[in-house]
Parts: sequence; C-alpha cells; structure tokens
Amino acid sequence: MALRTLSAKSAAALDQELMSTGAFSIDQLMELAGLSVSQAVFKLQPLNKGKRILVACGPGNNGGDGLVAARHLFHYGYQPTIYYPKQSKNELYQRLKKQLEDLKVPFTEDFTAALRQTDHIVDAIFGFSFSGEVREPFPKVISALRDTHLPVLAVDAPSSWNIEDGPPDSGPGKGFMPEALISLTAPKPLVKWFRGRHFIGGRFLSPAMAEKYGLDLPTYEAVDQIVEVEVEGQEKL
Amino acid sequence: MALRTLSAKSAAALDQELMSTGAFSIDQLMELAGLSVSQAVFKLQPLNKGKRILVACGPGNNGGDGLVAARHLFHYGYQPTIYYPKQSKNELYQRLKKQLEDLKVPFTEDFTAALRQTDHIVDAIFGFSFSGEVREPFPKVISALRDTHLPVLAVDAPSSWNIEDGPPDSGPGKGFMPEALISLTAPKPLVKWFRGRHFIGGRFLSPAMAEKYGLDLPTYEAVDQIVEVEVEGQEKL
Repeated sequence: MALRTLSAKSAAALDQELMSTGAFSIDQLMELAGLSVSQAVFKLQPLNKGKRILVACGPGNNGGDGLVAARHLFHYGYQPTIYYPKQSKNELYQRLKKQLEDLKVPFTEDFTAALRQTDHIVDAIFGFSFSGEVREPFPKVISALRDTHLPVLAVDAPSSWNIEDGPPDSGPGKGFMPEALISLTAPKPLVKWFRGRHFIGGRFLSPAMAEKYGLDLPTYEAVDQIVEVEVEGQEKL
Repeated sequence: MALRTLSAKSAAALDQELMSTGAFSIDQLMELAGLSVSQAVFKLQPLNKGKRILVACGPGNNGGDGLVAARHLFHYGYQPTIYYPKQSKNELYQRLKKQLEDLKVPFTEDFTAALRQTDHIVDAIFGFSFSGEVREPFPKVISALRDTHLPVLAVDAPSSWNIEDGPPDSGPGKGFMPEALISLTAPKPLVKWFRGRHFIGGRFLSPAMAEKYGLDLPTYEAVDQIVEVEVEGQEKL
C-alpha cells in the first residue's frame, strides 16, 4: 500500500485546523509529537546499544518536537545532549528548554565535537514548513549529518529536503539519507524518495480529519504512539 | 519498600512549582496525566475483555485527566462514554471536551443507565484537592461505584476518600474500594488503606523535584508512562 501523503500546504492547514476548530493547544500537540519521536528513538537505539543521543534542534516547531523528545528520552534512561543554536524567544520553546535544564541535560554549541561523543542523532532542524535555502549555521550541520556513520532519525523531513520534491540536487543536503524518518500526523510527499525505516506518529488524528484531508489512519499497536510502516513503490535515487 | 507519599498540601505545592519555576503548562501536565490513566486502563481491561469504558469526570483537574484519558482510550480502540455533570467553564476543559466531541465520544447525563452498558469505569471525580462533603450530584454516583461489581480505576484517590485519612466512615463512600488506583506524580497518604492494584504515573518528575519533596522515582519500564507497584504494610480496614 502506498501511504497517502500530505503536502506542505495541507500539513500547515491541518495543523491550523487542529489548533482552531480542533481545540488542541500547541503545548498538547508538541508534547504528543515529541513523545512519538522519543518512542521511535527507543525502537531504533536500544538502551544497551548506547545511550548518548544528540538532538539537533532548529528554530521552529520541528526543534520544539526535538526538545520534548529529549525530555522523554532522559526519563527513559538515555543521555541526551541538545544542539540548539537558533533559540526561539517564543515562550513555549523557552519553557521546553527550561524543562531540560532542570534535568541537567547539557546544551552544546559545538556540533562537530558533540558528534564525536554520541551514539545516535535526532535531526529536528527543519520540518514541513522548510523551503528554500539552508541558513547559517545549519549548512555545516547538515553536511555533517550527511557524512556521519552514526544513525540519524529525521523528524518529519530529512533537513534540507524539499517537502514535495525530496532530496536537493545541490547544497549540503545533497546525498543526505538518514537511517530513519518519523512522519508526524502523515507522511509528506518526500517519502517517495526516502529509503530507510519509516515511522508514523500522531495518534490523535480524528477519523473525520483523516477523511477530510484524505489520509490513512495507520494501525497502531497497544498504547504505542508510533507505528513502523513500509512504503511500497519508493523510488531509487 | 513502603513508598513515600505526598500530602494534599505538598501535592498542591508541587503542582504549583511544576507550573511556575518548572515551566510546565497545565496542558502538558494534564496530557501526560491522562495518558498515564489510559495506559493503566489498557493494563487492567484488555480490549478483548470488553471495550466499553465509562469515565466519570468531576469538575476539576481530576475530571480533566479523565477527559484526556478517554481521548487516548478511543484511539486505542475502546468505546468511552463520558459522565461529566458539572462542566467547568475553564477554557482548557472546554477544549478537552471538544476534542472528544470531534471523535463522536458520547456524553451521558444518566450515570445509572450508563453503568448498565459498560465493562469498566474510571473514577475521575475527585483528586488530591478533595476535602469535606461530597456535593450533588455525586453522592449517588459514588454509592453506585461502591456497589457495582464492575472494575473501577480511581484516579489519584478513590472519590470521597480523605487524602490523608483514607476511607470515610460515613456517607456514600463508606466501604468504597476500587479494584485499582493510579497515583499521579506520587502516592497520597490514603494509599495506606488501599487494597487493590496500584499504579504510579507521572514520568516527568525531575530527580531534583523528587528529592526536594522527599519522593521515590519509581522504576518505569521501556517507554511506559506508568508502573505497577506493590506497597508493603498496607493496613487492613
């Protein structure tokens, strides 16, 4: 089954609808999104295979999901480190940051050094609202993610990929193929080009909203907030 | 090990501290609390043993936890029904209610009738801030919970129990002993009188806060938001 996907424009509209008529707060949605991400890390990186998780956070909602995930990872017994070079002044992100500081989770400004002291990486830099150019200081971060031999889990999109058109054919993200991807709420069109393990999170979508946006509600197990899916018909690069 | 407990006064102070210096929003905390409750129901009432869950919600935060739990239960495949006779005008509760309405989860005003059409009950009527008299319309609800042969999971406290002194010696709650209890963040002193299965939820408490309030951080498994504990030295009634 080829999973139905959600364009960048529809993903933004769905988010907006969840928070208006859907009556969800961004705190709620981000908590559930970050929880999903943490559960995917738990599947990909068992605690006994290395507990150090480097979470690279961008300036927007994707970064916020990363901050929430890092908190849950701490409580599971991991040792997260946060790279968060462009911190939002938004009150929500400031609070998510404070929650990590209270757990004594370290923040680093040196991504290259942090990369040498981790077992796994979460790419929470850019999400479905990304388009255009990768701005400083992220080009060198994305090329490091491209070149590392460590496993990378991308949140919603491999950072620098075009949401509709997939991997860029130039720039630091050219050739960047993370080991795994977690699509939040629904896969974006870029999954057509993705090769790797693919998870879906967002176990809060109502059947009515799924129908309105033409989405499949995946079959989650038990109380899991994520499900791993196989997408047939993925194209080779 | 006898688990250390949190008095009603300390529980209120801890909640306040989480939301001030701790930088959590009530949306976040309630989402995680309700998620814990839903996971306890999943353990107590496997889907193949009956999917109908009656969630009795009180007017305050305990009721809010019940509303969140009901939403997650719907997504797990249960059929929740909500009894919520004293609805708060508070914007958060209104939103939690709307989220359930969007899932077409039914609200009932007839508790007695609903009790005949359910497999399991969640008692989210009163929590750690309860003291004094049980007000209308809850006396008859609590006596029905006391008398039912169906399993009841109480959230934070069996409703009508005194947080410090346990079961009341008169009134509708006299003799009320739910099958199970989930203590949120930490057990309250009433657990000393509780006989039944006991879960703890609240996998967001920092080690520093646990130390400050003299609490044990229970050992959760994997990504579970709850853990079942056995409390030695429970007194017989």
